[in-house]
Amino acid sequence: MPIQENLTPLHGWRRKLYIIIFEADTRAGRMFDLGLIVLILLSLLTVVLESVASIRQSWGTQLKWLDWLFTIVFTAEYLLRLVCVHKPLRYARSFFGVVDLLSILPLYLGLFIPESRFLADVRVLRLLRMFRILKLTRYMGEARELKRAMLASRRKILVFLMSVIALVIILGTLMYVIEGEANGFTSIPIGIYWAIVTLTTVGFGDITPKTPLGQALASVVMITGYGIIAVPTGIVTAEIARGSSSTPADKQSATRLCPHCFTEGHDWDARFCKHCGGKLPRPANHTVS
Amino acid sequence: MPIQENLTPLHGWRRKLYIIIFEADTRAGRMFDLGLIVLILLSLLTVVLESVASIRQSWGTQLKWLDWLFTIVFTAEYLLRLVCVHKPLRYARSFFGVVDLLSILPLYLGLFIPESRFLADVRVLRLLRMFRILKLTRYMGEARELKRAMLASRRKILVFLMSVIALVIILGTLMYVIEGEANGFTSIPIGIYWAIVTLTTVGFGDITPKTPLGQALASVVMITGYGIIAVPTGIVTAEIARGSSSTPADKQSATRLCPHCFTEGHDWDARFCKHCGGKLPRPANHTVS
Amino acid sequence: MPIQENLTPLHGWRRKLYIIIFEADTRAGRMFDLGLIVLILLSLLTVVLESVASIRQSWGTQLKWLDWLFTIVFTAEYLLRLVCVHKPLRYARSFFGVVDLLSILPLYLGLFIPESRFLADVRVLRLLRMFRILKLTRYMGEARELKRAMLASRRKILVFLMSVIALVIILGTLMYVIEGEANGFTSIPIGIYWAIVTLTTVGFGDITPKTPLGQALASVVMITGYGIIAVPTGIVTAEIARGSSSTPADKQSATRLCPHCFTEGHDWDARFCKHCGGKLPRPANHTVS
Amino acid sequence: MPIQENLTPLHGWRRKLYIIIFEADTRAGRMFDLGLIVLILLSLLTVVLESVASIRQSWGTQLKWLDWLFTIVFTAEYLLRLVCVHKPLRYARSFFGVVDLLSILPLYLGLFIPESRFLADVRVLRLLRMFRILKLTRYMGEARELKRAMLASRRKILVFLMSVIALVIILGTLMYVIEGEANGFTSIPIGIYWAIVTLTTVGFGDITPKTPLGQALASVVMITGYGIIAVPTGIVTAEIARGSSSTPADKQSATRLCPHCFTEGHDWDARFCKHCGGKLPRPANHTVS
Repeated sequence: MPIQENLTPLHGWRRKLYIIIFEADTRAGRMFDLGLIVLILLSLLTVVLESVASIRQSWGTQLKWLDWLFTIVFTAEYLLRLVCVHKPLRYARSFFGVVDLLSILPLYLGLFIPESRFLADVRVLRLLRMFRILKLTRYMGEARELKRAMLASRRKILVFLMSVIALVIILGTLMYVIEGEANGFTSIPIGIYWAIVTLTTVGFGDITPKTPLGQALASVVMITGYGIIAVPTGIVTAEIARGSSSTPADKQSATRLCPHCFTEGHDWDARFCKHCGGKLPRPANHTVS
Repeated sequence: MPIQENLTPLHGWRRKLYIIIFEADTRAGRMFDLGLIVLILLSLLTVVLESVASIRQSWGTQLKWLDWLFTIVFTAEYLLRLVCVHKPLRYARSFFGVVDLLSILPLYLGLFIPESRFLADVRVLRLLRMFRILKLTRYMGEARELKRAMLASRRKILVFLMSVIALVIILGTLMYVIEGEANGFTSIPIGIYWAIVTLTTVGFGDITPKTPLGQALASVVMITGYGIIAVPTGIVTAEIARGSSSTPADKQSATRLCPHCFTEGHDWDARFCKHCGGKLPRPANHTVS
Repeated sequence: MPIQENLTPLHGWRRKLYIIIFEADTRAGRMFDLGLIVLILLSLLTVVLESVASIRQSWGTQLKWLDWLFTIVFTAEYLLRLVCVHKPLRYARSFFGVVDLLSILPLYLGLFIPESRFLADVRVLRLLRMFRILKLTRYMGEARELKRAMLASRRKILVFLMSVIALVIILGTLMYVIEGEANGFTSIPIGIYWAIVTLTTVGFGDITPKTPLGQALASVVMITGYGIIAVPTGIVTAEIARGSSSTPADKQSATRLCPHCFTEGHDWDARFCKHCGGKLPRPANHTVS
Repeated sequence: MPIQENLTPLHGWRRKLYIIIFEADTRAGRMFDLGLIVLILLSLLTVVLESVASIRQSWGTQLKWLDWLFTIVFTAEYLLRLVCVHKPLRYARSFFGVVDLLSILPLYLGLFIPESRFLADVRVLRLLRMFRILKLTRYMGEARELKRAMLASRRKILVFLMSVIALVIILGTLMYVIEGEANGFTSIPIGIYWAIVTLTTVGFGDITPKTPLGQALASVVMITGYGIIAVPTGIVTAEIARGSSSTPADKQSATRLCPHCFTEGHDWDARFCKHCGGKLPRPANHTVS
């Protein structure tokens, strides 16, 4: 156990800041997190409203100011997060570290590429933190179970998707050859786009077969799609049914976060991080609902 | 209905009225309930017909009179219900109390806001009472099982919906940035609306991607939606399968015995013995619908 | 066992005709059935081709003659069926008796109401007999299992459909009030039609919301529909999964037909019809595949 | 591949060639296969790009040359495959033999029928070989399980599809009679096409009912389709669930033991002991992707 020592959390103001910003067990930490959620929601609203032409004309300047205000606040928060963790680079490369950075970049980029500032609403991803903050352990368990079912069936779904892609390329080409450019199938990529629109039962109707042969093929495609739609459903259902019947989902703690490598999903009884070997702080309360 | 005891008045005409209006076991109670169902259906028809322009032009006045007639009858019924229950406030705040009030309000509101009178067809919700009235206990059991499965999987579905909403906001913004206002994506809310239309495989086709990049992203969205549609289905199916596995519902009746040749294993719907042709006695529990 | 005697099959030429027309075990019976299938398919083709304007213009007279030819042949066959069974009325009221009648009526009706002659392709239903004729016992077992699963879940599905209908009426009215007649929602029935188109994820796009409020409500409807689509799937899946794991599906014989009441689905070892008590003919061969 | 023994030539250069072309275990074999995948992807890209009008105008000649180059290379490869196998006819008639031939034919045919050369992208099917080449045995297992579930449920799905086809013919005719040629339902085949588009919930919207009666029937069709979509899903799900229930796939490894504190129950992805923080040895079967 030699690696353990040089990973222990810091002391002093940085440790206090760390508890406020990263943990949600103290009163100050909960306040900080709730304030952050409100700010994120407000900034999302700002970005969305700014995109509506009529609102932009009358409130454009105010919204732009607000936008900058939020970005500055989030930039400050990002810098604080970098300051108070022991290994800033590790945080910066974690999933939420990247999301935090992405949510402040667009506006700065917007100085050069105007349109890109709307991408600021990638901030919505920051709300995923909410699960942890609000101590929604029960929900976390459900989310983890869904994730497990998705992961367990990912290979079956990949095999399925690859077959669908091969099918879609052939169907798209056939429709391009049958219908021709006069009927809207102007190229093979457009044909493939149509095949995807049809096979997934979306059916926009912007491109539709006009010739009898094309309509016959389309009918076959649709009935095939009808039969095929059963496959991913069957895969995921079988997986969920299997998982829910046996595994206890509340064994892992939702709110426990490794302060060294920022991974989650540590067991209630775990004393060390299973990913980096760092010591985990004691869980606040054992109220497994 | 465990609250029933508190609602029943103990004696006198109020008790008699209560039994007629709220219960369905006596002849008078059943008559009242059946009459109410007919009135609700007629009033629904009135509202629906009134909305059709051609019918409104020729029968407008008559329909308006009918509308008022129904509203007055329902208002009287609502007041009677309030009068004959022991705790009027409790009834007024119950689900059906609110529905009863909502189904008479729109016409009175219509005196001020003309369009709102069409909302009178919230009366359709009153028909949900029908389940209880017609004593369709078997259906109630099924409804209860569906409800149980929905409730048990509500957290999984909520987690799923929140992920979908986050996804939809990001996709809508991307499409707004990629396609731009010239191609119909006039704002981020419109982009989000398009993303929902596409991801749920509804596919109206009122807004469709025009640029190659937009069509490529749309293809990814559709195939994603195809994979994602499996998730809520899997959740609910696993839940229903779990619930239904406990209740046996065999087609063959174990208790049916041919009185002529004394063989067993006759189907529920069999009227004659399949071994000797003799007439079988009616099954004991003959409420197989 | 007194009822049994007066239901015994006849002797003489009517019995021979019965075996040819209704049974499929003799060589003549198989020939008759195969010829019938070919005739049905040809007559279907005639009806379908006749509806295409360009073909009708060049071959109209010939197709009309063919149409009459098929109808006369089927009329003769229907009369022969009536003649050779012991109780003609019972046959006439059975499912296939009604289908046989319906498949010859339209052309006669067409003398008065021209359009109705296209309904002759209700003849497609006669092909359902094919299952029995071609001795596709294995398929019959599957069909029976599907039917059983559908029947077993019919109450759950009915409860579900009634909730959907109530939901659709309220949504249709809301959209009519919100969007108004200017945006294509010309009446409440049209609103209900739109709500069904949307909730079932069909999404024609002939009527779409134009106002922001309407689009927001539509988004909620679509996401709801996305969650709701899981329910019938879950019901049927749970039922099929339950059935396929336990019950042997090959116990019942597909080709056995009661000559007295024309019901199917008799067990291999049954010697008497379980519906009318009549004696069943011996099964031709016991090759349960 | 049990046929392999018959196909392998016993000695000499043909055997060496066989090992390079058909096997993927040697270095040369792997190189050959990887090169082939790259060539197939490039040739697919060529065909797809050639179909885009704007690209064809500026790069048409180059793309045509490339097209011919790929076809000549694939022709050579096909001839080599024929030469080096022991029984050329058996290879030529196998699935991949036919695909290999089909992927070179279109361009030669294109000399006579210009449009057909786009069919060259049937080459995408050659990529299915990739599964075998990359030794993705785990994926192959999943693919085999999916195939098994599909095969096991093919009869149920066929019965289901035949019922759907009968339903669709009747619905298409009804809509043709109700809506008439003025509303876009120009013939029964078009009506059937519409019924398929609607029942499968694709809903292009190129043909939509205009009359109230047509819209009412369409509503019934859509709600029916909603109920029906459950059936194939249920069939496949039940089949997959049955198959997968036998194979255990636990997340936790029973065999992992911490060499420092000798505790068990470590997750597959754990790199450090969750009890003492000591480094865990790599799991034996470390091909968890």
